Amino acid sequence: MGVDPGSRFTGWGIIRSDGAESRYVASGCIALPPRRPMGERLTRIYKELGEIARCHRVEEAALETVFVHRNVQSALKLGQARGAALCALVMAGVGEAAEYSPRRVKQAVCGYGGAGKEQVALMVARLLDHDSDFGEDEADGLALSICHAHHLSVARLAARAREASGEAVS
Amino acid sequence: MGVDPGSRFTGWGIIRSDGAESRYVASGCIALPPRRPMGERLTRIYKELGEIARCHRVEEAALETVFVHRNVQSALKLGQARGAALCALVMAGVGEAAEYSPRRVKQAVCGYGGAGKEQVALMVARLLDHDSDFGEDEADGLALSICHAHHLSVARLAARAREASGEAVS
Repeated sequence: MGVDPGSRFTGWGIIRSDGAESRYVASGCIALPPRRPMGERLTRIYKELGEIARCHRVEEAALETVFVHRNVQSALKLGQARGAALCALVMAGVGEAAEYSPRRVKQAVCGYGGAGKEQVALMVARLLDHDSDFGEDEADGLALSICHAHHLSVARLAARAREASGEAVS
Repeated sequence: MGVDPGSRFTGWGIIRSDGAESRYVASGCIALPPRRPMGERLTRIYKELGEIARCHRVEEAALETVFVHRNVQSALKLGQARGAALCALVMAGVGEAAEYSPRRVKQAVCGYGGAGKEQVALMVARLLDHDSDFGEDEADGLALSICHAHHLSVARLAARAREASGEAVS
């Protein structure tokens, strides 16, 4: 499951992957009413993400690393949304979320780190063989899940290769 | 209950107040291990604060408003801790936390907004007639709860005054 938390929109996407192939499972966007009190908005992220993760029995999660942001106030708001999302994932039994830089996510999905939002959405739909139009935040969530699945499968292959060479040596 | 969330230490303090008098109930500081993964640390804030609020049947909560911060990365971290705390309070049935500026909290406790950390801790102990030495974060939590209790009692008196004058007019 990839999650892209925000103080207005929290995109999410779930895929099933065996390493070689990734299949689309579900995706969506939690839109927060802008004029409601902060606790209510954050609790909506917390409850909905937790419910989605439990419902789909999510085993792994990934978020984007945040390096820079426009200003301190928006970083604080983004942080609050991330805090709610990270708590939800741990409390739903998913555990720690992996983190990938935006560049790395774009590289995994589009082949290069400078790809635009539309290209990401387009490539996500192609890679998952899914012909619906994904919203921006939804596509970001799915792109994160593809990036994480890719990372896990490469890590597994590398471990197997190390094991095999170890066996050959011993 | 006053809560002062932070990425390292989250201070909290609970008082019981009838408007005229405030009594010390409990206070403490949740220290987060610095080298553990972020989800684990945030979940500790979430779980512990929720448990404390439920255990003491907290009815009202207050946090400090954040205006400025050293830099974007620390604002993001502080935001994450705040997000976990705000979720915990709503999920524990306390509801939305009130917010007060640091100046206003110091004014309510020390009489002027420029008071230092040590003065706040000293005045909190005096106001609550409690002779233990409070830690800085703990004292901040208690100061917030005193400020909120003060605000609520003034608001109640003002409402009563309006009612009384309304009755006199009608």
